[in-house]
Amino acid sequence: MTEKHFLYHFLNPKSVAFYGANNKGGSLAAIQIMNLIKSGYDGHIYPIHLELESVMGYKAYKTIADIPEVPDLVVIVLPAKIVPQIFKECGEKGVKRIILISGGFRELLDDRKNTLTEEICQIADKYRMRFIGPNCLGVFNNWYRNGNENQAFNTAIWEILKKGNFSIASQSGTLSSHIWFDPKNIDLGLSKSLSVGNEANIDIVDCLEYYKDDPDTHVIGLYIEELKRGRKFLELAKKTSPNKPIIAIYVGGSKAGNRALQSHTGSLSGDTRIYDALFRETGIISTEYVQEFLDIALILSRGILPKGNRVGIITNSGGPGAMIANNAEKKGMIVPELSNSLQMELKEMLPANASYRNPIDCAFDMNLPYFYITIPEILMKSGEIDAIIQYGVVGFQDVMDDYLKYDQIAKNAEFGHQPDEIMDSLAKKLVQPTVENSKKYSVPILHVSPMPFNSPWSKRLRENGFNLFKLWDRPVNALAKVCKYVRFKGKLLEGRKN
Amino acid sequence: MTEKHFLYHFLNPKSVAFYGANNKGGSLAAIQIMNLIKSGYDGHIYPIHLELESVMGYKAYKTIADIPEVPDLVVIVLPAKIVPQIFKECGEKGVKRIILISGGFRELLDDRKNTLTEEICQIADKYRMRFIGPNCLGVFNNWYRNGNENQAFNTAIWEILKKGNFSIASQSGTLSSHIWFDPKNIDLGLSKSLSVGNEANIDIVDCLEYYKDDPDTHVIGLYIEELKRGRKFLELAKKTSPNKPIIAIYVGGSKAGNRALQSHTGSLSGDTRIYDALFRETGIISTEYVQEFLDIALILSRGILPKGNRVGIITNSGGPGAMIANNAEKKGMIVPELSNSLQMELKEMLPANASYRNPIDCAFDMNLPYFYITIPEILMKSGEIDAIIQYGVVGFQDVMDDYLKYDQIAKNAEFGHQPDEIMDSLAKKLVQPTVENSKKYSVPILHVSPMPFNSPWSKRLRENGFNLFKLWDRPVNALAKVCKYVRFKGKLLEGRKN
Repeated sequence: MTEKHFLYHFLNPKSVAFYGANNKGGSLAAIQIMNLIKSGYDGHIYPIHLELESVMGYKAYKTIADIPEVPDLVVIVLPAKIVPQIFKECGEKGVKRIILISGGFRELLDDRKNTLTEEICQIADKYRMRFIGPNCLGVFNNWYRNGNENQAFNTAIWEILKKGNFSIASQSGTLSSHIWFDPKNIDLGLSKSLSVGNEANIDIVDCLEYYKDDPDTHVIGLYIEELKRGRKFLELAKKTSPNKPIIAIYVGGSKAGNRALQSHTGSLSGDTRIYDALFRETGIISTEYVQEFLDIALILSRGILPKGNRVGIITNSGGPGAMIANNAEKKGMIVPELSNSLQMELKEMLPANASYRNPIDCAFDMNLPYFYITIPEILMKSGEIDAIIQYGVVGFQDVMDDYLKYDQIAKNAEFGHQPDEIMDSLAKKLVQPTVENSKKYSVPILHVSPMPFNSPWSKRLRENGFNLFKLWDRPVNALAKVCKYVRFKGKLLEGRKN
Repeated sequence: MTEKHFLYHFLNPKSVAFYGANNKGGSLAAIQIMNLIKSGYDGHIYPIHLELESVMGYKAYKTIADIPEVPDLVVIVLPAKIVPQIFKECGEKGVKRIILISGGFRELLDDRKNTLTEEICQIADKYRMRFIGPNCLGVFNNWYRNGNENQAFNTAIWEILKKGNFSIASQSGTLSSHIWFDPKNIDLGLSKSLSVGNEANIDIVDCLEYYKDDPDTHVIGLYIEELKRGRKFLELAKKTSPNKPIIAIYVGGSKAGNRALQSHTGSLSGDTRIYDALFRETGIISTEYVQEFLDIALILSRGILPKGNRVGIITNSGGPGAMIANNAEKKGMIVPELSNSLQMELKEMLPANASYRNPIDCAFDMNLPYFYITIPEILMKSGEIDAIIQYGVVGFQDVMDDYLKYDQIAKNAEFGHQPDEIMDSLAKKLVQPTVENSKKYSVPILHVSPMPFNSPWSKRLRENGFNLFKLWDRPVNALAKVCKYVRFKGKLLEGRKN
């Protein structure tokens, strides 16, 4: 279905030519080729360079005319003023798709008339070429369709990322590329990323249209400074968001923000109230924070939506429980007191100093299978809550291993290091039933631990499918927005029935 | 001065006896001894145990009476019901200070009358003993005064932490101990931490009184569920906060939050409005988020306060600049357009596609010394801004090193790995002048990078004194609260003059 969309071949090209690449580290086009090498791309790569014989090991061509085939995609990183000439050469060669990385078009203060942009648009139209940019950072496709399973088509991101169902389209290269520089601390899997830059020819609406029907995209993220086709966007977003949630960062509304935008993409942002209304009407989840944007995407990408906004809180520590409850209520969620029968059921398995009214404080000496599996299951089954936030100081083996580095402790302690296989198997046994139950009852569960995100135990929890957060602020805020989306979706579906 | 305060000896004891410790990993008292071993404590340690000959290598005693001296401090981790008897034995021995870790006192639903708490309070009074707890996690002193420089007196925290000037007093053990489990991701140095638990004898007001005069405490953090001595707290906070900023998390105001508190420490929280008014009157910086609590503390602990709330934004990427500007204005800060003369000065050193009105977008190909040193210095000198937030995608050597792991790239690239010494020296040259300027002009500068917080370049920036944040949301929010505190402080000092 998406194969017919013109963006499909931007994301799955069989061959790519690069203008502007050399063998130096600082060259943006060279970086794009290096990203292709890292991500295992095995299509044809044709660097174009007037002097070099080869670039990053690929034979270089003096002009595009010399390339033995018509490249599926051309990437240009050359000064703006020579781009029209390059566009013409591409057109003559029969090229249909260009990614124009170069900046220096309408964002220059002395070219407000956009004559250069107009010129390249006219050339593109003449030769029936489509192009992304100018002033963008390239594209990323973790589900590249022409190669083997482990490949990606990636010119934009320096790291190898987990495959996932979250796709992003962004008017800022930072959001499309640079926020992905720390994969060890991001569990959110990425499907596609499109950096649209100044949108001279292809805009964020095109991307949304593509993602709407892309089978590998379940959740959509947008960074918006300006919408050029508001009506079309509204229509598309309305159709898309009940099935594929859309999370948007809209930047506008402040004086300084607008000043920044003018310099950035040359766009003039609109009144915030217009965008707020647009987001409300379409059920777009809006946020001003990049971390929250990623957190919401992580929760939604699991595909388990709460049915309402009642939160169950399970902790083994009082303070975080109270803070989570407090913030959840402030953000519009309900933290219901559990029914008597449910309280009695919980009481039986908890220590005497525990509490079980919600928040459920299991106290520090709780039993791990109860904490990880049984108590969440009881809550999920009960129908009294729609989502769970669980805070725990767990991962004692990591702590003990650390103590054992000290001679005096190692010599005297009646405990030792547990082999990795045992801990691996323990994590699997504790985590997987809860992940299954979460799906079965459609009750998302968010876990919080103060331990390092990459400590052995935290890693085991994450690898087995837990949504893990470092501290308890972020999951509350993100969950509140997910619950708001669910209410919107419910209303919309209700409306359709009537 | 603080040596005369009764809390001094809780934090600097020459000897400690432990009730409840054994050689097992799960024993909370054993963990406290292991923390002492890790932190290099070299005072006397006396485990008390009816059966064991030794605990963690220390000779064990059957009763406290058998110990050859009166221990400076006694730590108790035993079931609540036998605590009165232990208290009596301690009193008879001549003990003056107890930390009562054990829970199970008034937080138990069936002991609302607090008879057990009353009983131990009476025993303590009779023998003129002071005690912390019950239901607490112990104490931490990174500036232990009886040993060598590298020692700490620490029963509470599992990790070795950077020494600093931030001290915390908390009614939740999580805030005093568990949020410190990830030292590689926390640059905030800790001075002291006191977990006060149920405050049967010593409360958060005592801690504030101690921190007020403690020379190693410059910034104070409080986690409050309930204030038992409101008037005294108000007086003390008013005196303290203009000199030593106080950051407080107050948990209360929501139904579920109160339910959690009753179960946690048995306290009944007050009306949020009372606490809000209290915080406003005293200039206490209040937050609902634990991460923000730590971020504000980090900024304040550097001792460089902005003079107002005008923010300069320096980036090499448009999107984050626009988001920072937008959020800064929403949080009450001003992002002023720079004067013409300042803009002209900046224009000269920036690439053609850069912008310099504020936000200053240096564009991707900026010159590093300009980015790190010269542009911040020009802003600081100008008197047009009071604080700087700087976002940069830098650390290219880390990225290049990563590319060089791929054979094809390593074979063909005209760049190589830079020796650590060169990178170390570069970081020093780029960072230290700006840290100096920040002090000189009293303009705090907060740096943001999307790279991993522990990547080689990020680590170098941090080690040389930069306030580094992973993404750009947190520094804006934290800085806004710091600016609010500065306004309060200014008004207060103004008021005193008149």
